[in-house]
Amino acid sequence: MNRVSELFKIRHPIIQGGMIWCSGWKLASAVSNMGGLGLIGAGSMYPEVLREHIVKCKAATEKPFGINVPLLYPQTDEIIDIAISEGVKIVFTSAGNPSKYTSKLKENNIVVVHVVANKKFALKAQTAGVDAIVAEGFEAGGHNGFEETTTMVMIPMLKQVIDIPIIAAGGIGSGMAMYASMALGAEGVQVGSLFASAKESSAHSNFKNEIINTDDGGTQLTLKKLVPVRLIKNDFFNRIHEADKNGMQKTELAEILGRGRAKLGMFEGDIIEGELEIGQVATQISTIKPVSEIMQQLINEFNFTSHRMSQLADL
Amino acid sequence: MNRVSELFKIRHPIIQGGMIWCSGWKLASAVSNMGGLGLIGAGSMYPEVLREHIVKCKAATEKPFGINVPLLYPQTDEIIDIAISEGVKIVFTSAGNPSKYTSKLKENNIVVVHVVANKKFALKAQTAGVDAIVAEGFEAGGHNGFEETTTMVMIPMLKQVIDIPIIAAGGIGSGMAMYASMALGAEGVQVGSLFASAKESSAHSNFKNEIINTDDGGTQLTLKKLVPVRLIKNDFFNRIHEADKNGMQKTELAEILGRGRAKLGMFEGDIIEGELEIGQVATQISTIKPVSEIMQQLINEFNFTSHRMSQLADL
Repeated sequence: MNRVSELFKIRHPIIQGGMIWCSGWKLASAVSNMGGLGLIGAGSMYPEVLREHIVKCKAATEKPFGINVPLLYPQTDEIIDIAISEGVKIVFTSAGNPSKYTSKLKENNIVVVHVVANKKFALKAQTAGVDAIVAEGFEAGGHNGFEETTTMVMIPMLKQVIDIPIIAAGGIGSGMAMYASMALGAEGVQVGSLFASAKESSAHSNFKNEIINTDDGGTQLTLKKLVPVRLIKNDFFNRIHEADKNGMQKTELAEILGRGRAKLGMFEGDIIEGELEIGQVATQISTIKPVSEIMQQLINEFNFTSHRMSQLADL
Repeated sequence: MNRVSELFKIRHPIIQGGMIWCSGWKLASAVSNMGGLGLIGAGSMYPEVLREHIVKCKAATEKPFGINVPLLYPQTDEIIDIAISEGVKIVFTSAGNPSKYTSKLKENNIVVVHVVANKKFALKAQTAGVDAIVAEGFEAGGHNGFEETTTMVMIPMLKQVIDIPIIAAGGIGSGMAMYASMALGAEGVQVGSLFASAKESSAHSNFKNEIINTDDGGTQLTLKKLVPVRLIKNDFFNRIHEADKNGMQKTELAEILGRGRAKLGMFEGDIIEGELEIGQVATQISTIKPVSEIMQQLINEFNFTSHRMSQLADL
């Protein structure tokens, strides 16, 4: 269909975001089997756990799949080595310097994609030699950029300065949004929240129920003095957000945050005290569905939108 | 072309936002003469000044034009009466309760559109009987919603619950974004920043130069403890934003803000101490152009995108 489908050798340029605590081999293989690109989220896995997921994913699909590796963790070197030794063909890197691992991965014939949230890092990633970028808008769940640039503004802005394929992320929960992203200049989409809510997602069912109950304004980007993160407004959010507003600084905020709150909320199901990372688009999600239905819905909506738009007369 | 062009009896469903200090009769009539809908921004005008602009606009164009009225000002009643007595046919209301003036305006055969930034007010506006809504995303300049919902998320969300036409605003600075908005479910667009920078805009040239120099991350939504407003990050922004982060509360922030800073920055050209209200899309604006060129560019880009997208195969 286009450069993104060709790059990954997939049928539909729909990438499932490699999200912590959601994206194990079950989710990734289900998406790949439906003709999209499934990603195992290495960010919440010890190296040996990741290896297990890769092995199981290879057994569950003959289609291409990849892994997402946040570059900030101490075990990144080990994770990259596992990807290479297990024959992973596609690696998405995020949250770090794209120049550090790109050449090593490319020397091993791995397709490399870097996730960015601003123009500066998009240019850096292109210079580092990655094959494509994911451009993630402000509306996306989880960690995000300081610029707060939204998907609608980001994609045309990057299209002016970037030659490699751009994959849009943030706010993509329907075939309409996928079609819109491609009109803006993207050649594929990365879908997070919708797949986090999927039956095959390894997220706790309490978290999935919170996703489908999130309405307009139910998430907010917070903790901007540390690293900005979009969370559902639960008790924990309210407490730390209030402290932030009242002038609490970095060190104390980090203390309240502590460690392991994303796991607590998203994997262990503590919806009161956990961090619940999800995108604004949760407002459009109302049922927990299997991946097969989600993919078919995206495809049907995309095609329907394409037919609807083709009937518009020129201005 | 669609319900929005029919409603306003215009050729292209492109509405120029009725922005304070930018949108006088010159800008509005220029947009209307090019087949869009020009709006006079009443928000920065004394009632008699507004009357003068309406009279001049009627002389400068035979095409439909309208006015934008923020409903929070003490002189709103007088402004509505002027609109009626001067035979204005289209009124966009914003920043207030849509039910208060809609029936009076409709009794006088005026088309009424209300500007919203969330689902709650979109539903309220529809119930109040307005003819269409403008749905303004987080990326838009100036005052904005507490929900921070972006255009990419807002339009499909509202499309699920709203039957009247939706006009997308926020992040629309190109024909690509216009086409994308319509794919999302909008039937027209309201373009602010791009027209604020136009030759015919009554904004100070210093402000226009700041707009074209704004890069990624150059604006931010701030003053959330008062009313959220997106501003260019100048000295004034930095001072008040820092105070906010350090825990300063509502009353003191309002004192620092004082009165008349938008006029100071946007109309009088004090780019250091003034409030400079502009959208994220300023990052895509690099020259000050006349309205005729801006309109032609939007139209060309829209048509080009339409042709490009029509070549996509079904998924």
